[in-house]
Formats: sequence, structure tokens, C-alpha cells
Amino acid sequence: MKRPTIADIARAAGVSKGTVSFALNGRPGVSERTRDRILAIARDMGWQPSSVARALSGGRAGVLGLVVDRPARTLGVEPFFMQLISGIEGELAANDVALLLQVTEDQAAQTATYRRWWSERRVDGIFLVDLRVDDERVALVAELGIPAIVVGGPRGLAGLPGVWNDEAAGIREVVEYLVALGHRRIARVAGLPELWHTVVRGEAFERAARALGASVATEVTDYTGDAGARATRRLLAAAEPPTAIIYDNDVMAIAGLSVAAEMGVPVPSRLSVVAWDDSVLCGLVRPRLTAVSVDIHAYGVRVARLLLDLVAGRPVESACNATPTLNPRESTAPVA
Amino acid sequence: MKRPTIADIARAAGVSKGTVSFALNGRPGVSERTRDRILAIARDMGWQPSSVARALSGGRAGVLGLVVDRPARTLGVEPFFMQLISGIEGELAANDVALLLQVTEDQAAQTATYRRWWSERRVDGIFLVDLRVDDERVALVAELGIPAIVVGGPRGLAGLPGVWNDEAAGIREVVEYLVALGHRRIARVAGLPELWHTVVRGEAFERAARALGASVATEVTDYTGDAGARATRRLLAAAEPPTAIIYDNDVMAIAGLSVAAEMGVPVPSRLSVVAWDDSVLCGLVRPRLTAVSVDIHAYGVRVARLLLDLVAGRPVESACNATPTLNPRESTAPVA
Repeated sequence: MKRPTIADIARAAGVSKGTVSFALNGRPGVSERTRDRILAIARDMGWQPSSVARALSGGRAGVLGLVVDRPARTLGVEPFFMQLISGIEGELAANDVALLLQVTEDQAAQTATYRRWWSERRVDGIFLVDLRVDDERVALVAELGIPAIVVGGPRGLAGLPGVWNDEAAGIREVVEYLVALGHRRIARVAGLPELWHTVVRGEAFERAARALGASVATEVTDYTGDAGARATRRLLAAAEPPTAIIYDNDVMAIAGLSVAAEMGVPVPSRLSVVAWDDSVLCGLVRPRLTAVSVDIHAYGVRVARLLLDLVAGRPVESACNATPTLNPRESTAPVA
Repeated sequence: MKRPTIADIARAAGVSKGTVSFALNGRPGVSERTRDRILAIARDMGWQPSSVARALSGGRAGVLGLVVDRPARTLGVEPFFMQLISGIEGELAANDVALLLQVTEDQAAQTATYRRWWSERRVDGIFLVDLRVDDERVALVAELGIPAIVVGGPRGLAGLPGVWNDEAAGIREVVEYLVALGHRRIARVAGLPELWHTVVRGEAFERAARALGASVATEVTDYTGDAGARATRRLLAAAEPPTAIIYDNDVMAIAGLSVAAEMGVPVPSRLSVVAWDDSVLCGLVRPRLTAVSVDIHAYGVRVARLLLDLVAGRPVESACNATPTLNPRESTAPVA
């Protein structure tokens, strides 16, 4: 069952290719009886209007694009992306739309990809993830006129529609909880500093801690476990080490648990540890990790639905998806 | 900068749409001077031959497809897939080819996706992962005539080209190492039993253990951490519990470490633990996990290269990619 061409159908029907083309495209110049006969033969042969034909007739590609510009080798251990993608995928598949995925190593490669996809009509719209401070993609998307939904916000959107989680409220809840447990020296092991969500979390962290009379320390990382381990060693080696550390993902928090063990600092009796992005890993390690939790799969479903709406010309509005909730387990405790 | 149409270019050049079409498609009926002028204007306007036009003219879609049929929510914590995808992606991007990804919940949805992609000319070829015993996709691919590379093998290929890792040699090395450390009761916590690579590993495990005089026990799981934890509890609660457990992925091995701690079984002094798929997680937990290691990113690069060759009509041959190597860390030790 090879894909039948117009020539195959013409041969089977005993008519010209032009007649087949007219019949399949519903154009005049062919009798109704002949049209019905040709359509029946085409269906029997497994003919389907190709995405090519649909695109040429002004239809859509039926494809949405996602470019992730994180180093390819670190992606494999970042549960966030695979969960986001699986949520997006689930919603797109239900709508018979595919996801075109590309992993790039820098933002220049990413913008080049968007330009090419759009000029070649490969996609009907794109998801923008990991929005940066001074993000050149925002202007590019406006310039190209490509439908786009930002997976993030509300800061940095510059008029594009976006869906975000309330990072500031999430980290405030963590700080209030730790202060209530008696912690007064709280550190944060942050992710990539050029990302908006890192900035938003960082500002809210410092504001909340100061308002409650706690001192803060922040270490900057690239989200990898190794960087999380090094940051933890620096923090625990300080003259006045923190009694609680908040990590920007769960892979770094797991590394932090191990470094605490290696340095003889028991968790949670001398150090409380909080992870972000509550994947199943948090429940698998010991002590089980207290974590800030968002349903990333559901977040993916929601952004997919919004981009489908945008591409279909339906009205869309920027919105907060959810407030991350604190899920206390075994890695946090009152200060001894 | 909207995508220019042939009408836009015709307007700018002051010629008919037919003339522009002839010029852009290199067809006769337009003077060389006019053609050059139209091409220059088209280039200035950012015109690029669309994938639609290329496809209609018999060219390729420039897209390869991958369908993963694992439950969407478990994918986020399986480093294997994201690493494989990032390797595939890296090689495809270098060749200006995109990856179309779909996550399905069962094999019927997967075969329907392949049929649609192929009949709609969305992809030039596909990657088949997680080959099953009695896999209906193998016959489907032959029926459709769609270029396909199996990420796996050599069993179950039924004539399709595939690239695999020598799972049997990998597990033999583990068993020989554990027996050399004095272990005589060795268990395995296996992944999905319907997958060929699970079968291959399982048979090689039992053969190697018997040949060396060790007794075996096997628990079947779905690769999730929870299933790995339950399997570990069952094994350690037995009258004669194993002194070593081999896990089919690293998420389950991490769960196993935690269950051993919870049941008061010290690792490695009373239980040795070996993980498969050596992601960075194995080095982040304590004790650091001894693991069977394959460079999955490089594996992705290799299968991508093979499918690009196949689509381009170059000869391809099934091949073993690598023999997994044992990477001993802190979770294995001689029997006390």
C-alpha cells in the first residue's frame, strides 16, 4: 500500500490526471457522476488529502513547533521538559496536530529555526519556552507574525500571550514555612540567571526573606546536578552556613542531599532541603524531599490548548496557570 | 516580514504570477534577464522555496518521525528517551531535518499515527523504538514501504535495518563481576516484559547466572520508581533474600536504594545494587550507583545518521552500536 498519486488514480479510473485533480479538489469541469466514481476509487486506494495539498489550498500544516535551547546532554535528566512535552503532545494528538521538536545549543540557532519553519510553512505556530531577560525571540515573533504562546510570564511577554505559574507566590510560601520552623539563614541554589522565571523567583525570595527577618544567600547554577553539588559545598563550608536550602529543580536537590551526607550534615536535623518541580524522583530518595509542586503535564495541556485556539483564530488571553504548592515530606524540620 | 507569496513577488516585479512561478521553478517561457530580476526581488523579500513546493515537486518533507508509546506521565523521569531524542535531534539539525514527535498511549494509536504521517507525506521516514515481541509495526512498515530504522535488535527485526546495543554481553559482564565478588543469590528487577530488549537481557541474565552457579530471581515492572520499590520490598522480604540486585533502569535502582535503607539493609555491605542506563542521577545519590553504561546520546546520533542514509537512498546495514560497559561505583561490594 504505497501512497497513491493522482496518476495512479487516473490510471485506475481511466481518466486524465487533470480530471482526477478537478474531482479531488471539488472544482468544476467534471460531471457529478464521474466525480463520485473517482472519489470512490481514490478512497479505495487509500488516498488522503495530503498535508501538502491542504497547505497549498490555504489550509494549515497541522504542526506546532517547539525549540528548546538547553544543552542537549543536560535535557535527559530534567524531568520538567519531558513532562511538559508529554502534556503538550497529549492535547495536540487529540486534535490531530503533531509537534515538531528541535533542540538547539544557543538562541541564534533557535531564531534561525523559527525563521526557517515559518518561511517554509512547516508549522502553524510555536511555543516559546525559557523566556530570557532581553529575549530576541519576542521581537522576532512579532516581526514574522507567527502565532506564538509563551510558556512563562507575566514578565517579559511584551504583548505576546503567555501562561505562567505564580513562582513568586510559590517561593513566598516556602520562605514563610521555613521561617515558621525557626530558620533564619536561608539559601537558594538558583537555575540559569538569564531566565525570567529565575529572576522572578529570586526577587520574590529575597523580598520574602527580608520581610520576615531572615538572611539570604544565593548560588547561581546551570541546573545540572554537578553545579548543584558544588553550590551546596560552598554554602555548607561558609562560616555561618544556612540551615535551609531551596533548590531550583529536583536533580540539584538530590545532589544537595548527597553533599550534605558527604559533609556530615544530617538532613533534616541540621539542614532542611526544599526541591522545586516535584517529579517522582523526590519521593524515591531518602529522606523524601519536601518539594514545591506544579502539575507540569497539566500545564503542557493548557499551553497546547491556547496555541490551538490562537492558530484557529479564536480569542486567547494571557493567564496564570497555577500557584505552586508546597508538598512537605521528610527533608524539612524545625531548627534544632 | 510576512511570508511573501508569488502574488507579492509578482506585484513587486510588475509581472504576472505565472511569470513569477515560471522563474522561481526554473521553467522555460521567461527570459534570462527577467528571471534573474525576479529571483533577486524574491530573495530580497525573504522568499524561500516552501516545503510544500519541494514536496509537490517530488522532494522530501525534510522531517523524520518518532512515536513513543509509553504512558506520558512516566516519560518525564526516564532519562533514556530525552537523551536518545537529544542525540537524534543533534544529528538531524546538522542536516536541516526536523523531528516530528508523538507520544501515544498504546500501539494501536502508534500504528494509526504512522499510517497518517505516511499517507499525508508528513515524514520521510521513522524511528521504531521499544520493539515488542510480536510487534505489529514491523509488518505495517513493510506494507507501507515507509523507510524505517529500528532503535533496537537484533531479535525481532524481521528484515528491517536496526541498531542495537549488546544487552546480552552487558548483563553477562555484570553477573560475572557479582559472582567474582562472591554473590550467589542474584535478582533482577526487569522492565516491561513485552519488549524485546527485556527478553534479551532476561535470557542472558539467567544463562550467565546458571553457568556460574548462582541462583536467580526476577521481578517484572513497568520501569517506574514505585514498581521498582515494590519489587525490592518483595525480594528483600523473601526467606533467602538476594545479596545483589540488578535494575533495568536508574530510576528503579534509586528507589531500590531507598527501600534497602527503609528495611535496614545496608548498601553495599549486605546488598549490592547495579543500575542500567547510567544517567547523571547514578552519580548524584549516595552510595553512588554502580551502573551499566551506554552513551545514549551517541546512540541517538548513530540511528539518526542511518535513517538519513536510508531516506537518501544510500545503502544501510544493521549493526551493533556498542557493548554496554560496567561502571563500578559505591553500591557494589564483596559478599560479607
